[in-house]
Amino acid sequence: MAEREHNIAIVGAGTIGLSFSALHLTKNATCTVTIYDTRPDLQAYVKQHLPGYLMEGDYDTCVVRLAFANDLQSAVKNATAVQEQGPENAEFKVSIWPQIEQYAPADAVFWSSTSGIPASVQSAKMKDPSRLVVVHPFNPPHIMPLLEVVPSPQTSQRVLDRTLSYWRAVGRTPVIVKKECKGFVANRLAFALFREACSLVAQGVVDVKDLDEIVQASMGPRWSVAGPFKSYHAGGGEGGLTSFMEKIGGTVQECWEASEEDVRKGAIKVGGDWQAEVCRQTDEAYGVVETAERDEKTRKVLAAVGGT
Amino acid sequence: MAEREHNIAIVGAGTIGLSFSALHLTKNATCTVTIYDTRPDLQAYVKQHLPGYLMEGDYDTCVVRLAFANDLQSAVKNATAVQEQGPENAEFKVSIWPQIEQYAPADAVFWSSTSGIPASVQSAKMKDPSRLVVVHPFNPPHIMPLLEVVPSPQTSQRVLDRTLSYWRAVGRTPVIVKKECKGFVANRLAFALFREACSLVAQGVVDVKDLDEIVQASMGPRWSVAGPFKSYHAGGGEGGLTSFMEKIGGTVQECWEASEEDVRKGAIKVGGDWQAEVCRQTDEAYGVVETAERDEKTRKVLAAVGGT
Repeated sequence: MAEREHNIAIVGAGTIGLSFSALHLTKNATCTVTIYDTRPDLQAYVKQHLPGYLMEGDYDTCVVRLAFANDLQSAVKNATAVQEQGPENAEFKVSIWPQIEQYAPADAVFWSSTSGIPASVQSAKMKDPSRLVVVHPFNPPHIMPLLEVVPSPQTSQRVLDRTLSYWRAVGRTPVIVKKECKGFVANRLAFALFREACSLVAQGVVDVKDLDEIVQASMGPRWSVAGPFKSYHAGGGEGGLTSFMEKIGGTVQECWEASEEDVRKGAIKVGGDWQAEVCRQTDEAYGVVETAERDEKTRKVLAAVGGT
Repeated sequence: MAEREHNIAIVGAGTIGLSFSALHLTKNATCTVTIYDTRPDLQAYVKQHLPGYLMEGDYDTCVVRLAFANDLQSAVKNATAVQEQGPENAEFKVSIWPQIEQYAPADAVFWSSTSGIPASVQSAKMKDPSRLVVVHPFNPPHIMPLLEVVPSPQTSQRVLDRTLSYWRAVGRTPVIVKKECKGFVANRLAFALFREACSLVAQGVVDVKDLDEIVQASMGPRWSVAGPFKSYHAGGGEGGLTSFMEKIGGTVQECWEASEEDVRKGAIKVGGDWQAEVCRQTDEAYGVVETAERDEKTRKVLAAVGGT
């Protein structure tokens, strides 16, 4: 059965909601997007800020497929998918899904953009929790391809299949996270490196700006093309990762132990004494970051690796 | 005083030595490179393998500036810089530098490509340890811009200045590491993320291939353009990293604690029970990695971010 044309209900029009709206409207030429938010100046706000998420010339073809809703019921009543990015607290999310479930068509799928509240928690009061899945973006979602798709044990295979199929069709890279762990995967990985970065700066091994330069000139480009397992697998030659671990494993373990020791000695916990100096160096190095230039370069990098 | 034309003595003609030779010859149009290695078939070996490190058409203009030495003395006697990538053990390096020092011109600088043996250890028997500095590449150095420049406390400012100046002139990104710590900075950062990656795969949160895809679709492209501090500084809006830590710090700390707990429970040490499954999944996902395609894409990424 062919699906009807997509009508995406965007619940919550902050930066993530606007970024996703721009993505749907530009990458899915036949969809409509209905935005709902409790802010009183919603239409004016969206029309002012949405162009910042679009390429020049895209606004006119997008705005004609954009609608606004004054209440949740009218926002979701014709939706094929409801995408939620409301306040990041469990009570809000637990209370809104039963309402959405009540008003949305029976075949609509439900996506939460949460960065940490699992679908199994959010769906606690739903009649049919199989309809809900977390679709966690890497900011900003209109540029970055990654979406972490995190089902609860109740999420149905049909909802998962439709979710993957939709996002692949709009040029994204949806990846399934198989267990609802703390922070999901991308943030866990990024924060692990970030902790080590904070630790090395706190010890005076390297400055903030030099550390960023190190990452930009090595792991960034490398991991754009091949993730850590593939990279070390290549580094091991014909014997692959097994051979890499035989040859370099001793050094890897020594580094892991040195890191543990340094993190402990430096008391690298959030809010610790080290934090002010790291923040000071970062302020001094960058002032206010120009994200437009960053986003433009990121688009070029993604084009270079064959993304969209 | 203008420096004389560069004559780089390459001591050790493995993959790193050949990669650096290709870099010098292609990015420094007037330099000569003299290669020394104990292998008996040195000339034939280099002439066979060097083209693999060059772009098409570069070989003819490079080979005329390439020389071979049968012994260390003739390799370094006219050198402006001696670049060592011999066996990765301290005894070898401690014993070779006094010989190099004896034969090389008094103004030659000494670079070691070691990934872990500090200059302060290597220079133990040198008359003048101020001439030696570690210049640690991120493989392969003819493509990846990063060079970690790690002085010993004895390394002179003049040697450091000449080192930075040379490598910047050939389009690299030399970054100073201020303390001789275990593993230097790039590997410490990469291994910290790799440990978390192994831990998440070992727990069944995500597959090897999906984890790589997560990194390739998020942190890779992002960190090609802006390192972790700059990225989180931008993520904090006008308040920068300080504001980011106020808003997201609680989640960061929870993730750090979850990671510690998981690493402990999973016994994520090199050679642990988890390792076979991670290696198996990696083999299954990738077989033998085609590095030519990886390198070609990496060049494009670097061009996109303004590298060379």
